[in-house]
Amino acid sequence: MTLENTRIVLASRPAGEPVADNYRIEKEPVPKLKNGQVLIKVIYLSLDPYMRGRMSKEKSYADPVPIGGVITGETAGVVIKSKSLRFTKGEYVCCPSGWQSYFIAEENDLMVYPVDPARVPLSTYLGVCGMPGRTAYFGLLREGKPSAGETIVVSAASGAVGSVVGQIARMERLRVVGVAGGPEKCDWVRNELGFDECIDYKAGHLDDALAKACPNGIDIYFESVGGALAEAVAKQLNPGARVPICGYISSYNARKVSETRTPFHIFGELENPPWHQFFLVFNYISEYAEANLKLTEWVAEGKIKYRETIVEGLENAPEYFNWLFRGKNFGKLIVQVAEDPA
Amino acid sequence: MTLENTRIVLASRPAGEPVADNYRIEKEPVPKLKNGQVLIKVIYLSLDPYMRGRMSKEKSYADPVPIGGVITGETAGVVIKSKSLRFTKGEYVCCPSGWQSYFIAEENDLMVYPVDPARVPLSTYLGVCGMPGRTAYFGLLREGKPSAGETIVVSAASGAVGSVVGQIARMERLRVVGVAGGPEKCDWVRNELGFDECIDYKAGHLDDALAKACPNGIDIYFESVGGALAEAVAKQLNPGARVPICGYISSYNARKVSETRTPFHIFGELENPPWHQFFLVFNYISEYAEANLKLTEWVAEGKIKYRETIVEGLENAPEYFNWLFRGKNFGKLIVQVAEDPA
Repeated sequence: MTLENTRIVLASRPAGEPVADNYRIEKEPVPKLKNGQVLIKVIYLSLDPYMRGRMSKEKSYADPVPIGGVITGETAGVVIKSKSLRFTKGEYVCCPSGWQSYFIAEENDLMVYPVDPARVPLSTYLGVCGMPGRTAYFGLLREGKPSAGETIVVSAASGAVGSVVGQIARMERLRVVGVAGGPEKCDWVRNELGFDECIDYKAGHLDDALAKACPNGIDIYFESVGGALAEAVAKQLNPGARVPICGYISSYNARKVSETRTPFHIFGELENPPWHQFFLVFNYISEYAEANLKLTEWVAEGKIKYRETIVEGLENAPEYFNWLFRGKNFGKLIVQVAEDPA
Repeated sequence: MTLENTRIVLASRPAGEPVADNYRIEKEPVPKLKNGQVLIKVIYLSLDPYMRGRMSKEKSYADPVPIGGVITGETAGVVIKSKSLRFTKGEYVCCPSGWQSYFIAEENDLMVYPVDPARVPLSTYLGVCGMPGRTAYFGLLREGKPSAGETIVVSAASGAVGSVVGQIARMERLRVVGVAGGPEKCDWVRNELGFDECIDYKAGHLDDALAKACPNGIDIYFESVGGALAEAVAKQLNPGARVPICGYISSYNARKVSETRTPFHIFGELENPPWHQFFLVFNYISEYAEANLKLTEWVAEGKIKYRETIVEGLENAPEYFNWLFRGKNFGKLIVQVAEDPA
């Protein structure tokens, strides 16, 4: 039986928000496995804002996806055939397969690693226990350098990264103020995640809301949004404040990112700029194991809560991807590519 | 809590059969784990004839163990600490730890690989489902090139390798004649493993016994013993016979192997030498996964039977090691280093 792989490739580079024509769906037979290789059937595909950057022709910290290349992406799946002692048929793994339904991995690729869905649900290895969770973990603890009693403002507080940042900050005994879009998300952030406050940026009056929520000023701003929120936060930063920059989604669909006001402009142009720096979770790869262990423990024990929006069908990934830019997803956005037997 | 590692090192090179003075037992604290490393607690240590070669100063296919170095060896154990995404605490693995109670492995070492004791017992990954089983698998099928209806003679037929060679040869529909030491082993080889015949080499009259058991001559001789058996087999080989040479234990304790008559002398000096060649299972490393899959399936289904002699205590490994040269073990010889929780 020959398996058929469905893959979504970049047909052309988007100008602004990606449209259907920027993608092409291709089918191809899954090639024969070579020694040392592993065939993975993809179950869940993670959709993350950083993917938009890979669709542009500018080289950033990573090479762009070439025209005709499979869109970059992490997935969780199951090994269905193994020509390696390292992986066994039936084992669950995470891997950087990209947007496709099957993936052939090399046994010595350190980004292909086993996960245990008996411990926490398989999908969470793409969210709270995966790359977004690790981004929150290292971004807050290593880049943000939090101290008990400080005030942190967390952008995209109901999102995959922000929700974890805030919950870890709570464990570190900071005053935690989230910012999210709409009353439903804000209620969840306050009541379920236990943030001290959550500001609805859609309600306007950001300056007043921030001043009220942060009576002692802002010591850490966890940045993943940019734009108007960053401008408002910039006015209320304390001396010695830290701004770890995970991303700035509000600029990602600008025709030219270089023509928008990024957080580097906003914070860099202040009279007394805070420490602010873009960080790559990949720099912490040698410590991923420690972070994953802690995150899965916290999730298994209920100390960290999470929410997922799981949508159906690889072919629909391009449409769902744009949800990220409209705040349409609630929590981690994941595409179900195949049934989850775990 | 600092763990203490017990390791057995080579104190001096043996002349003849190793003695207690050739070994030294050392204790040391287990060092701190670095990123990308995994701490393995050894449960079972495999004792195999090839280890004798590593104790000599002559470089063979592998470097000798240096004086003061841990004796080479495969073990099965459990991950008790991991700083790698590739391995999780509690996971069972095989690894080339050598004769010691704890081992720090690098995550990208392909000889460290997970095993599943729910499928077949953990100890079998050192025997029938491990290196000896793979040696049998590739040695028979790739080197021996068996055809249905041919006759194979298997030396050390009740041993870790020979017992598997004969059972696979039965599946390939050869006439299978084993050679083992003593009636108890021969009974087991015939009645449990289903060899067509098993000759007790200790009963003498090898020429007659071989002639009677192999009325159509010998097409394959699976060599792991050498000496008198090889001399007897050499007289009854058919034209086109193959002699895969896995080892020749009868020569290993000679003061100088080069002064004994090895199988290379015995078969090479015949008027019409058969195809005969020493083989290394390591040459097939890229196909280990396939062999392991088949072997564990056969064992799980009861198609391949095995026997183990499991002895207690790492400190006693030097004493038990000599059992191999005296045929004192029955089946695979394994040292229990720690309790098996699987």
